[in-house]
Amino acid sequence: MSDDERLPQPATADIDLVTVLHALGDPVRMTLLLSYADDAEHSCDPRDLGLDHLHKSTVSHHMRVLREAGVTTTRVAGRNRFVSLRRADLDTRFPGLLDALLAGRATPVR
Amino acid sequence: MSDDERLPQPATADIDLVTVLHALGDPVRMTLLLSYADDAEHSCDPRDLGLDHLHKSTVSHHMRVLREAGVTTTRVAGRNRFVSLRRADLDTRFPGLLDALLAGRATPVR
Repeated sequence: MSDDERLPQPATADIDLVTVLHALGDPVRMTLLLSYADDAEHSCDPRDLGLDHLHKSTVSHHMRVLREAGVTTTRVAGRNRFVSLRRADLDTRFPGLLDALLAGRATPVR
Repeated sequence: MSDDERLPQPATADIDLVTVLHALGDPVRMTLLLSYADDAEHSCDPRDLGLDHLHKSTVSHHMRVLREAGVTTTRVAGRNRFVSLRRADLDTRFPGLLDALLAGRATPVR
């Protein structure tokens, strides 16, 4: 981690399961999770996230819900913000959950 | 399964991950899930579920959300209704998810 600032987020031990489930129980936020599953940092531009159809403020709202739930971390570098998945923290807090979610999302319906 | 009627519920293949997460992203419904995790049938009486502080109609609402999401099944026997977890269906649809949720819920915060 660099000296760049991070937006507020819960400590690993404070990540709450029900709050995480609430955060992910939304189709846009699940789409974001799938984007972040590559463990890279992502810009907040809706076009980079396959969410061109949504207003930037809507996408920002969903990103905030994910960050405040402890699902993502946001690094601030000057005027830019970069979002990535807190995979290690989630795996520590809820072993197996993230893998099950990502596998479940990939399962064909029939 | 007996000849008793079941309330409407999605087929296993139609259980949707985001809908399940939304259903479980609520503290009362998570409490219900923990009650149902014993795989027994439970009455709909809030007192039997440790939810005495909630009105029966509130508990009924939460039960309905769980059933419609595919988390639970409700058997109707005369005037009585019995709710149980669709563990096998959830394990088929989303392998490892239920185990991770139940283990995660049991994890002490610190």
